[in-house]
Amino acid sequence: MILVNGVLSEHVRVFDRGLMYGDGVFRTLLVREGRPLCWQRHYDKLCTDCAALGIACPAQDRLLAEMGRLLGTTPDCVLKIIITRGEGARGYAVPEQTEATVILMTGLIPQYPAQHFSDGVRLHLCATRLAIQPRLAGIKHLNRLENVLARREWSDPEIAEGLMLDMEENVIEGTMSNLFLLQGSLLYTPYLGRCGVAGVQRARIMELAGRLGLEVKVENLPLDRVYDADEILLCNSVFGVWQVRELEGKKWRAGNLATRLRAFLNDDALN
Amino acid sequence: MILVNGVLSEHVRVFDRGLMYGDGVFRTLLVREGRPLCWQRHYDKLCTDCAALGIACPAQDRLLAEMGRLLGTTPDCVLKIIITRGEGARGYAVPEQTEATVILMTGLIPQYPAQHFSDGVRLHLCATRLAIQPRLAGIKHLNRLENVLARREWSDPEIAEGLMLDMEENVIEGTMSNLFLLQGSLLYTPYLGRCGVAGVQRARIMELAGRLGLEVKVENLPLDRVYDADEILLCNSVFGVWQVRELEGKKWRAGNLATRLRAFLNDDALN
Repeated sequence: MILVNGVLSEHVRVFDRGLMYGDGVFRTLLVREGRPLCWQRHYDKLCTDCAALGIACPAQDRLLAEMGRLLGTTPDCVLKIIITRGEGARGYAVPEQTEATVILMTGLIPQYPAQHFSDGVRLHLCATRLAIQPRLAGIKHLNRLENVLARREWSDPEIAEGLMLDMEENVIEGTMSNLFLLQGSLLYTPYLGRCGVAGVQRARIMELAGRLGLEVKVENLPLDRVYDADEILLCNSVFGVWQVRELEGKKWRAGNLATRLRAFLNDDALN
Repeated sequence: MILVNGVLSEHVRVFDRGLMYGDGVFRTLLVREGRPLCWQRHYDKLCTDCAALGIACPAQDRLLAEMGRLLGTTPDCVLKIIITRGEGARGYAVPEQTEATVILMTGLIPQYPAQHFSDGVRLHLCATRLAIQPRLAGIKHLNRLENVLARREWSDPEIAEGLMLDMEENVIEGTMSNLFLLQGSLLYTPYLGRCGVAGVQRARIMELAGRLGLEVKVENLPLDRVYDADEILLCNSVFGVWQVRELEGKKWRAGNLATRLRAFLNDDALN
């Protein structure tokens, strides 16, 4: 089911700057028993991302009211929220008065193989590099051609995700997930101030790590740091946490960090 | 008037990857007396850009037939053509079967001040930098947030365009135009293999320059080369050619290259 600006619809106008220029942001989150998980974090991130582009983020009450209408009939789903800058005339200039377009879409929760959670996943090393653009770094905006090109690099269904590096060969993220590397009691995650998307699940793990006796370090990480890691984890708001068991022929045994983190992350009281 | 996949409509489906990810390309061109100017070049560029993203470009006959329907009622207009990869499920992976979405929109021809053509235009020096991404360089794709952010840097209607540099401080283009620098009998235009859009009007000028006794050089151009130039020209398929008369306080007298080029460019027989 889809609401576009509060109206049941599957369409947006072609004048929408989301279509014209990718001028907007989005979120993808899990809904369980009618409750959008980690909602406050997702809303805060929407606001931050909108602000970075100069888009007026819709009020939380409005979004919650519209979500309430959708989630009554689909209490367990993946919810995608798209906020665009709204409509404009031809040309990049933003009209003085714009009203954001709000799209709420529910979808089926993906059924990933149980092995992804028990044994870990295989990873493709993407040739597509992420451009360095501090002005857009961290934001989950609608300009996602790099992710599209990276995802087109493999079609083997045994490969669950692709690992993306930036133009300077730093490891940044998966095409749809963030990355952590465990090395002893240190948990490394790539610096995302120059490219990449700073996801909500990543932020939660960074906060939770202390409870597991781990210290988090945010750094520029060259690829050899991935190969040297004790455990490699991917995370996002839909699948939660996966360990990586194989990357380009190199294999890792199943560790226990993904399982331990999952126990915390599934406790939504910890948000 | 707008045709979406051959049907009169102002809407696209929210599942369209053009909206979801900016997964598509576009063209903006002039139509005079029902004839899309430089059509073959624009179509060829559409094909090249689609191919670079792995999108199947619609056949020329189909586009011409749909354009014929639109242009009968609006023989003088700006025509915007958007080709997206079509619809997909949630997620970056491209479905095995996709059908490109074709959007044709007509709009009014902008009425720029006569002074823009006689005396030249004022330029803003944009703080927003273009990221270096060879995989997308040259393509007029729908990921245009950098242009949007750059265009938001000024609101003074006296300023006609913004000059954009890349992350390494090379001058690349205007937010909606390409750039040429005249220095003696040499005509420089920035190298666009790492970022920027390689426009049709730029290609035409590069080919025509020889008739004006000018040699074209494609180079990485730092900003001081702009300030040192005898004349600075901007071009696109809608306004044609403008000289720059002012950039951040530095002024240039009206030269004659823009006028001379315009005479050639207006002759569509030269395509």
